[in-house]
Amino acid sequence: MKINQKCINTARILSAEMINRANSGHTGVALGAAPILYALFKDHYNFYSSKYINRDRFVLSAGHASALYYSCLHLFGFDVSMEDLKNFRKLGSKTPGHPEYDVTDGVETSTGPLGQGVANAVGLALAQKTLAERFNVQKFNIIDNYTYCFVGDGCLMEGVAQEACSFAGNLKLNKLILLYDCNQITIDGKLNVANTESVKGKFKAMGWNVITVSNGNSYLCITKAISRAKKSKNKPTIIIFKTQIGYGSVYAGSNEIHGKALTDEELAKLRQNLGVEGGFKVDEDVKEYCYRAHRRAKVEYFKWEKQVVLYKNTHPDLCQQFFDYFNRPKLNLQKLCKGKFTENMAMRDANHVVINQVAKNLVSFMGGTADVAPSTKVYIDDGGDFSSSNYRGRNIHYGVREHAMAAISNGISLYANSSVFCSTFLSFSNYALPAIRMSALMNLPVMYIFTHDSIIVGEDGPTHQPVEQLTQLRAIPNLTVYRPADTNELMAVYSLAYENKKPSAFIIAKQALPEIPTSFEGATCGAYVLAEDEKPEVIMFASGSEVGLAMKAKETLNKDGISAVIVSVPSIEVFERQPEKFKKSILKHEIKNRFCIEASNDYKWLNVFGGKLFGVTSFGASGKGKDVLKFMNYEPKDLVKFIKNSLKNE
Amino acid sequence: MKINQKCINTARILSAEMINRANSGHTGVALGAAPILYALFKDHYNFYSSKYINRDRFVLSAGHASALYYSCLHLFGFDVSMEDLKNFRKLGSKTPGHPEYDVTDGVETSTGPLGQGVANAVGLALAQKTLAERFNVQKFNIIDNYTYCFVGDGCLMEGVAQEACSFAGNLKLNKLILLYDCNQITIDGKLNVANTESVKGKFKAMGWNVITVSNGNSYLCITKAISRAKKSKNKPTIIIFKTQIGYGSVYAGSNEIHGKALTDEELAKLRQNLGVEGGFKVDEDVKEYCYRAHRRAKVEYFKWEKQVVLYKNTHPDLCQQFFDYFNRPKLNLQKLCKGKFTENMAMRDANHVVINQVAKNLVSFMGGTADVAPSTKVYIDDGGDFSSSNYRGRNIHYGVREHAMAAISNGISLYANSSVFCSTFLSFSNYALPAIRMSALMNLPVMYIFTHDSIIVGEDGPTHQPVEQLTQLRAIPNLTVYRPADTNELMAVYSLAYENKKPSAFIIAKQALPEIPTSFEGATCGAYVLAEDEKPEVIMFASGSEVGLAMKAKETLNKDGISAVIVSVPSIEVFERQPEKFKKSILKHEIKNRFCIEASNDYKWLNVFGGKLFGVTSFGASGKGKDVLKFMNYEPKDLVKFIKNSLKNE
Repeated sequence: MKINQKCINTARILSAEMINRANSGHTGVALGAAPILYALFKDHYNFYSSKYINRDRFVLSAGHASALYYSCLHLFGFDVSMEDLKNFRKLGSKTPGHPEYDVTDGVETSTGPLGQGVANAVGLALAQKTLAERFNVQKFNIIDNYTYCFVGDGCLMEGVAQEACSFAGNLKLNKLILLYDCNQITIDGKLNVANTESVKGKFKAMGWNVITVSNGNSYLCITKAISRAKKSKNKPTIIIFKTQIGYGSVYAGSNEIHGKALTDEELAKLRQNLGVEGGFKVDEDVKEYCYRAHRRAKVEYFKWEKQVVLYKNTHPDLCQQFFDYFNRPKLNLQKLCKGKFTENMAMRDANHVVINQVAKNLVSFMGGTADVAPSTKVYIDDGGDFSSSNYRGRNIHYGVREHAMAAISNGISLYANSSVFCSTFLSFSNYALPAIRMSALMNLPVMYIFTHDSIIVGEDGPTHQPVEQLTQLRAIPNLTVYRPADTNELMAVYSLAYENKKPSAFIIAKQALPEIPTSFEGATCGAYVLAEDEKPEVIMFASGSEVGLAMKAKETLNKDGISAVIVSVPSIEVFERQPEKFKKSILKHEIKNRFCIEASNDYKWLNVFGGKLFGVTSFGASGKGKDVLKFMNYEPKDLVKFIKNSLKNE
Repeated sequence: MKINQKCINTARILSAEMINRANSGHTGVALGAAPILYALFKDHYNFYSSKYINRDRFVLSAGHASALYYSCLHLFGFDVSMEDLKNFRKLGSKTPGHPEYDVTDGVETSTGPLGQGVANAVGLALAQKTLAERFNVQKFNIIDNYTYCFVGDGCLMEGVAQEACSFAGNLKLNKLILLYDCNQITIDGKLNVANTESVKGKFKAMGWNVITVSNGNSYLCITKAISRAKKSKNKPTIIIFKTQIGYGSVYAGSNEIHGKALTDEELAKLRQNLGVEGGFKVDEDVKEYCYRAHRRAKVEYFKWEKQVVLYKNTHPDLCQQFFDYFNRPKLNLQKLCKGKFTENMAMRDANHVVINQVAKNLVSFMGGTADVAPSTKVYIDDGGDFSSSNYRGRNIHYGVREHAMAAISNGISLYANSSVFCSTFLSFSNYALPAIRMSALMNLPVMYIFTHDSIIVGEDGPTHQPVEQLTQLRAIPNLTVYRPADTNELMAVYSLAYENKKPSAFIIAKQALPEIPTSFEGATCGAYVLAEDEKPEVIMFASGSEVGLAMKAKETLNKDGISAVIVSVPSIEVFERQPEKFKKSILKHEIKNRFCIEASNDYKWLNVFGGKLFGVTSFGASGKGKDVLKFMNYEPKDLVKFIKNSLKNE
């Protein structure tokens, strides 16, 4: 057996043994696709250190191929030991069921939900382009890494992947290479029960370079194809590798092997078929041969380091800018925005002011919208449009592709752990939810800006009027949701998100909001007392546009001799993180008549603040915003009635 | 001006006037696409009555073209009056901002969120195929309608549309015709800022018939192209109409006109350019000419009625089956499932038993999974697989396309208001959420079956372990969520959903659940007392697998002398609909120590039942199910501790 083949079969056996030991995992893809990952790691993938910014990025979009992936990480010198392989899928191990960001050396992004990884890879490749455009000069290719992404039939069927690939073709991301494990088998059986499209034709139509490797089991054919793909000048590449699922096992070519662990007997038979002894052992010649790739990558890295020293000497200013790109300067938004808000300004316009100030100070800040920039007003004014002829542009036009927008944002953010924004209407946030979940799972500093934030959207009707979306967002662990009531709170919540560097969602009204005596400092605590009568009978907690509603209701209540406190709550999550003593001072548990006011159906309010929710629990209607509010009984008089009825029943 | 042109321009002016009057709406597409809708309605669309099962289906996927759509409905004899047109986008009108199902005569589905309509159309076309296959015989084409769908650039960029179109090509749905308004303009500007793919190439690769009409402004070219499309033998057709957005207005060809109302002056100029007087008036010759199409459709309908009479005489059995198809027999699941559950049966297997009994009794019941049938066990055993060579099959293989699966299910359900199921893991329900929202908005009897229902999923890790998904589903208005604790409750909740004929989500454990003394009758009330000590100190409300958890905790508490009540809650929504008196008897407000137990972060529990939530509020981890429960502190002993701590602090 030739050494390459021996290495490949070693990876196969390691994977099958891991899955057998865990009695859980996906043997089919590990056996079928081992030659692909091996050839990539052996001859192409430059990975020396995860701190090396110009390293190649590899995304295992078909996350269920994790056993194979970990086997390769082990063989190629990553910090994944044989013990780690033995602990595959065990609690607390470095080798969880699907690859997890920040858990395993080498893993660039968490994958598992199909299609997400493809879009992450597109984001990583986009980020590479923008850095290359800004900092490469003459012979200094400081940033010129490739992004490789391993995908299966499943990934490519997902809409999010289709959106992302269409987008990538338009942008001519030529350093993006998809490695498509085309085994024509899915969980349900042969792929043609669900899919017969020509992947080749589709990708060509989307402006991609397509290479087909009919023998996806041949190391040599694979490595040559990757070499060709790397030469693509103005198109991303997909290499279609025809492979056999479960290669070498008794289940070769069958869907049965997809999510199955081999029995001890079947495993013994596999070892025999592949001519590898196994037993979680790797022969010395295999170790040595694979380690060469690690040395190759190391040499590449040191070459790069030397280049940077030269770059610093010959282009000191540019080099400084390059270093600065990864910094995060202090930001005083109150100072920066001073005088920039106009009277009675729509909140989306005020939001536009704020993000432009962030952009001015944070050079790496970029992002875009799903074809609604003129509506959400989320746009960096002097940032230029990102396009295949302007990779320096900071405004990305995602097209009507909300899901890919979010998943690509994850990828951009992952490249250099940078803040990225993206935007659409709140009502359509649900299109992006699976990718928002991934931002949250990885704790990435992606800023989701959702405008048109309640039933007041009006004429566009119930399809465009969010009701449950706030609940759906707040339910995602790790995601901080902000719903500011005016420009003061807006600046405060952006300051928080900027400092947190964690995933955040900004819920922004389309319209202007009434002037209220808000507090920047108060808002940074998530909740604060906005107005307070002496000996209050009633306490109202409200967010966003409903703070104004509560204030109006209070006027009426006061006239009727009912005293009240109003607490503005720009962020429930931020409030929850405050010290108990502070929280107590805001919660004022001594007031028995408690009301939470938000045009949503989020019962989380009651858990945090108690009382009754004055919310919106059914779908909206088409009509002028104010007519809709009236129709839905959501005017100040309705709130007054709600409160008075409650007082009566006490 | 020729009469056809006059009719088209009349539709244009009506639309522009409606939008001008409402000062809200989308003038661009109305002016650009008027010839397309006109040609369709005039020469092809068979629509006589919305009760006519074999009527053609028309879906306005680009829902923002509503003004044009309503204008055509008015001109072609639907129940949409001139007064209705004048009330465009007004609260309570028949002409809301985007088309709404059940509001306007002729409207087959609610649209607005882009891409949904395309997938609905695929579902409608699929339903047509299954009925045709079952009931057409020899010369009797009882069901042979076409499905037309109007789409714009935006719809086609959406992943859900791409998924649906790939699926439709595979199934050779030749009676599906997409009318693509290709104006190359989006909200953000020229389409090429976001998209340069070859739609033609892509659709060809997906197995579609592609027709390009370079003059999409010519009635004659349009109607000829539709005639050609109708002849397609084994492929769905997309007709690419090259059009000009805002045709005839001062903004022709510009993105500015997309979502804009013309001013009075601009409108006057448009009237002049198009040679139509306007003023919400339609000339007699136009009225008469358009009415001919109504008569054409009426003639077609009476032909069909006659055919059915003959069919009844010649094929009485088949005809009876045809009529029965639309009936909904009474269903006694307890009787039907008797003896079919085995001991210690996994809940997903029990679910398989139940849906098979439903399928046996409800002939129209069909559905499928997103490539996880072997895992979710959602499969009709003797139903056959739906494919281009077996349109009789009742099991649909959607491929890994969760979003399209849900949106297509809406379409299938819409065809004859029938019950449809679809299924994936609960964790991936978020991929389908925008379409689930549409099921709920339209109140369609789609049954979402989500298995693998909590962190106990185990080794696959946090990406596959639902946490927030239950909250996200329960937040959707009109959707009833069921989470049964055993086979008894499973039968009960399916009985409820079957009778309700409204959208429902079944949350099904992957594993077997412990035996508990559940009640079928109790479960049909949404919540009921499962176990009750004398003088209880503690009350626990729980759902699904957590009912067993509560029972175990109760044992320990009892040993320690603490008495308790356990209420099983298979559906919060169903419980909420019960009479106040019944609710009071279950809520037992007199018990002060209240606990809600569910492996989710849904605070809705507290709003309904009060107390404290013993839930899961952070992402899970990869490891064996029981190890994950231990790691997350979610074992019986943790619940006991949680309760005891709470009692101590009282």
